[in-house]
Amino acid sequence: MPLSERKLIERIRRMSGRRVHFGHGIGDDCAVIEVRKDHEALVTTDFTLEGIHFRREWHPAGSVGHRCLARGLSDIAAMGGEPRAAFLSLALPRKLPQRWVDQFFSGFLKLAKRYTVQLAGGDIAESPAGVLADIMVLGAIPKRRAILRSSARAGDFVYVTGILGASVATLELLREGKKPRIAAHPRHFHPDPRIAVGRYLREKKLASAMIDTSDGLSIDLQHLCDESRVGAVVYAESLPRVRGPRGLDFALNGGEDYELLFTVPNRKLVPNEIAGVPITRIGEIVPGKEVRVASADGRMKRLKAGGWEHFR
Amino acid sequence: MPLSERKLIERIRRMSGRRVHFGHGIGDDCAVIEVRKDHEALVTTDFTLEGIHFRREWHPAGSVGHRCLARGLSDIAAMGGEPRAAFLSLALPRKLPQRWVDQFFSGFLKLAKRYTVQLAGGDIAESPAGVLADIMVLGAIPKRRAILRSSARAGDFVYVTGILGASVATLELLREGKKPRIAAHPRHFHPDPRIAVGRYLREKKLASAMIDTSDGLSIDLQHLCDESRVGAVVYAESLPRVRGPRGLDFALNGGEDYELLFTVPNRKLVPNEIAGVPITRIGEIVPGKEVRVASADGRMKRLKAGGWEHFR
Repeated sequence: MPLSERKLIERIRRMSGRRVHFGHGIGDDCAVIEVRKDHEALVTTDFTLEGIHFRREWHPAGSVGHRCLARGLSDIAAMGGEPRAAFLSLALPRKLPQRWVDQFFSGFLKLAKRYTVQLAGGDIAESPAGVLADIMVLGAIPKRRAILRSSARAGDFVYVTGILGASVATLELLREGKKPRIAAHPRHFHPDPRIAVGRYLREKKLASAMIDTSDGLSIDLQHLCDESRVGAVVYAESLPRVRGPRGLDFALNGGEDYELLFTVPNRKLVPNEIAGVPITRIGEIVPGKEVRVASADGRMKRLKAGGWEHFR
Repeated sequence: MPLSERKLIERIRRMSGRRVHFGHGIGDDCAVIEVRKDHEALVTTDFTLEGIHFRREWHPAGSVGHRCLARGLSDIAAMGGEPRAAFLSLALPRKLPQRWVDQFFSGFLKLAKRYTVQLAGGDIAESPAGVLADIMVLGAIPKRRAILRSSARAGDFVYVTGILGASVATLELLREGKKPRIAAHPRHFHPDPRIAVGRYLREKKLASAMIDTSDGLSIDLQHLCDESRVGAVVYAESLPRVRGPRGLDFALNGGEDYELLFTVPNRKLVPNEIAGVPITRIGEIVPGKEVRVASADGRMKRLKAGGWEHFR
């Protein structure tokens, strides 16, 4: 490991600009966290593994740190919650340059600051192979207000934020050996978790069910339908997607967009834009358990759950 | 991966014998957890990495699952808290036998049941190399009652639970190619986190500071002293240790014992046994910042922080 655990902890303490806010987090056996009364705690954990979720030759360290935290924040957004604290377990190969670690934390902490999330603890270990990160995010939500996956009803409309398939479109460029400009591909390198949209949907009691699109629409919509014991029809023509011949494939199967996919009872009006993010109606919930795609000419096809296989 | 994430989630749900207790844990974006009022939440995370923390040829899968959870529970014990829920992030190599995974969970869930800890969520991924686990344990503690590392004072006595160095003594047998009987080496294969002792020390307001011995006495006592800005003297002859010529070395430097190391103001009486676990006074807190060892003839030696290097 490039640094002793103690030295790394000191650096993180300095970089995150705090020593006492969370008091007994970094540097003790546990972090001690107060949860407001009338609120429940939300907890989510997500791996970010070199070779599975990123490649060091493709992804700058700052992007890896950003995406690592974004995955957890997006899960909090998908419940309508507010992120509060993050815990990072990080295993580093012995020969990893210190610069890489610093840039990783820089990307991580910049996103944490944007959403006033404290890095409150974690674990550091030596990695047997590659950079291994596990992020845990703790959020808060008013009691019994979490938007679950299991409460969609037949007749609800299906909506999505932003654009689907943008992340995997960039991934394909990387696979083809191209060098996309980082700043020109924010949805892949620096996805912005849809915290404000999730909160709006919860506060206005609009969404009946919600999930984030981390595995790809075909998988994530199936998850939501399975948990709710319903089926769905997606209108192929309506999917907000990237241009090009593979746009529809990317939109249906591309993962890691971290958009919100949610259902709304059909009597409720949904704005075209929430917190600056475009909202698109892409389908409806139906009885049964199948997810199908309807093309413009009215033909229906079963949508097979086939999310992108990251780097294979 | 031997199983799809969904199938594995179904198995875990079945094995942990619950579908609704934690309702929105496994199977949704986040777990939703209620924290009792007048209580704070404790959060800890710990890696268990193949080749660093265990070897598949040395450690049965059930022991790996047990130890994985025990690490997190021990951190909760070291604050005087009560464990409530665990989150397990698990990355598995593609070719891992299903039997291994089942036995891992069996060991994990048996320990969870003993302390009524719910497996409330987590993440499953394919591993690029070896079994990678990250455990997050959520605990609860009455407000402002957590026993920190930073509150030891000069004049306090230093105590430890159980025996020091037992885990590394077994590790040495494994290294020498011997095949120790699993049941005869519980402190290595199935360490019992000292939850009841931690709770007793908190309820009786005995301990001024506490840490668990995960890295070895020489490192963990130094951590406690650093955080408290004090020094310590350890009485070599008093250390509860395993028999044999290397017993003292094991006791000073062996890690992964998961005993509790705590300080008590010298006017307070400490029982010789708490919750069936022997308690031994091993030293005292002194001004300064050095940790020293006093031998029976009164000579003092600086104790260098040199915990066991696991498998190197």
